[in-house]
Formats: sequence, structure tokens, C-alpha cells
Amino acid sequence: MMAMSLDGFVARKDHTLDWLNKQPTENEDHGFFAFMDSVDALVMGSGSLRTVLGFGDWPYLKPVITLSRTMTKQDLPEHLQDKITFSTESPEALWSIFGKRGYKRIYVDGGAVIRSFLQAGLIQDMKITVVPILLGNGIRLFGETAGDIDLELTSATPFPSGLVDLHYTVKGA
Amino acid sequence: MMAMSLDGFVARKDHTLDWLNKQPTENEDHGFFAFMDSVDALVMGSGSLRTVLGFGDWPYLKPVITLSRTMTKQDLPEHLQDKITFSTESPEALWSIFGKRGYKRIYVDGGAVIRSFLQAGLIQDMKITVVPILLGNGIRLFGETAGDIDLELTSATPFPSGLVDLHYTVKGA
Repeated sequence: MMAMSLDGFVARKDHTLDWLNKQPTENEDHGFFAFMDSVDALVMGSGSLRTVLGFGDWPYLKPVITLSRTMTKQDLPEHLQDKITFSTESPEALWSIFGKRGYKRIYVDGGAVIRSFLQAGLIQDMKITVVPILLGNGIRLFGETAGDIDLELTSATPFPSGLVDLHYTVKGA
Repeated sequence: MMAMSLDGFVARKDHTLDWLNKQPTENEDHGFFAFMDSVDALVMGSGSLRTVLGFGDWPYLKPVITLSRTMTKQDLPEHLQDKITFSTESPEALWSIFGKRGYKRIYVDGGAVIRSFLQAGLIQDMKITVVPILLGNGIRLFGETAGDIDLELTSATPFPSGLVDLHYTVKGA
């Protein structure tokens, strides 16, 4: 579940997301809460975590696992220390840990983390919101892959704001 | 009117388009003929021209202007020499030439040419077909821009093949 400019960026080069607010989406249901309700945990990179921490209010009710070799609990405000854990495990190792905990559906957030899980064949479905803007440069959502990753379109939903929610399943995942 | 993989590529690095045939689209009307009917001429780069020449049958009924500093009529099969002209003019100069000829609606094809016309503010609407595949690398549709290019969604049409036609107008163009 990621917002991407039509030219494939999830953030400007300086990580800012201001361009997401150019389209008023107040009364649109992009399914964020329903989606969050459906997952058992979230995995994100330290870049995404820092961005979310910058929002002030912590938006997640589910456990968050952050992939980082440098961040520790000390980097978190006290009230979030039991909500976020840090890990340096591979996608495959994490997947097996999640299985033991009974986690079945994980939300993977952030370009680099999505790419590593995709590469490991562990992404089953993707929801991409295409934002009607060309940024020209920035941080890309997708990166190199070992080969083609074939997708199957589940739904395409346009909104009055001009955002289009595209839902895909990954073939063979 | 361009087909783009979900990760933003119009062709593989070696210019091949084989991945476009992974999704059967036989009975789908992506509006190619209606669109071609609506334009007065086509502008394309030499890369796109070479690709189309490689198809064998020439698919266009309208005049084609190819931007190239190196190709000449000699590079064309004889039966196409009156259908294709070459130019080294800027997008702005071409636009003014087209105006004098009474051309009102031009189809601009090929990544580099689309980018130069976009940059000149001469693209009014875009039809992008998003193909359900991640290629990982290749030739990008969009490139650097001088700033944000804001778009307005006109329509989003999903097809049984999983292709999604997105139609945008360019704000301020």
C-alpha cells in the first residue's frame, strides 16, 4: 500500500511528501484503515519509520518491525518503545519468525524493504495508489529485479482527486 | 499513448517489447484506432521509428515527422519515403510549423520526444497504459523535469488483460 507519482517516485530526493497534499482527498476512502485492520504486523525500513515518527501521532495499532542496523530503542520516544522492534534479519528469516508468531498477513512499507521482499518472492499482493503528478526525480518505489515480476490486476479504482488505486497479486509468489 | 510497465519502463534495455505480449489483449479496445483517427500527424524519435519499421507493415495513415540528426530518406524503404519526414527542429519550432499547416492535434511518441514536448509545455493530454509487470530495468518513459508537472485524471479503465488505461490532461499546458 504505497502512493507513487505517475513517474514512479514515493518521495522527493529529500524524502519530503508535500506533493501528496496537492490533491484534496478528504472524503475519499482509500482503504487505509480496512487494510491496516487486515494485517498482523508491519515491516518498514528506518527511512519510513523516521518519516512516520515525524508525523507526531503514531498511526499504527499493530506491531511494527523496523529493519535497521543502527537504530535502537534509545532512538524512540518512550511511549513507542513497546510498539516498535528492530531487526537485521533477511526477509526469509523474518517470514519464518512471523510464521511461528502466527502472523499471516504482513504489511511491508518503504521502497527498499518492498524490493527485498519482492525479490524473495514474499509479496503476495500490492496496492499502489498512482498520484496524478510527474516529479521528475526522487526516491523510486521499484528497483532492479532478477527478472520479470508478472502481476495480475485485481482492481483499479479511480477517485475524484485523480488518485487511482491499483491492486495487484504477484504471480508465482 | 504509451504502454508502460508498472515500474515505468517502455522497453527493455535492448529496446525489445516482448513483455507487451505476455498479456493477451486480443478482444480489447484500447482506443488505438480512434486515437490515431483523432490526430493530424505523429512525431516520434528515431528509436521509435526503427522499432515500427521493424514491425514490417507500416501502421500509420497520418504523416509522421521523425526527429533525427542522422537519418535521411535514404534510410527508408521506397514505399515509405513520402510518409515520413525528418526534422531537427525544437518542439516549439515544430509546433509553430504544425500551426501553419493547420495541424491541431499531434501524437507524440517515444520517451525522449515526449519528455522534450512535456518540458516545453506542449503536451495537453496523455494516455498511459499501465502493463501488469515489473521489468526491473529498461528504458524509462518519463525523465527529469524542471519542476512538478501536475496532471488531472480524465479516466481510468481496467481491462481483463490487467492493462489499465490512464488518461490525463496536463495542468497549465
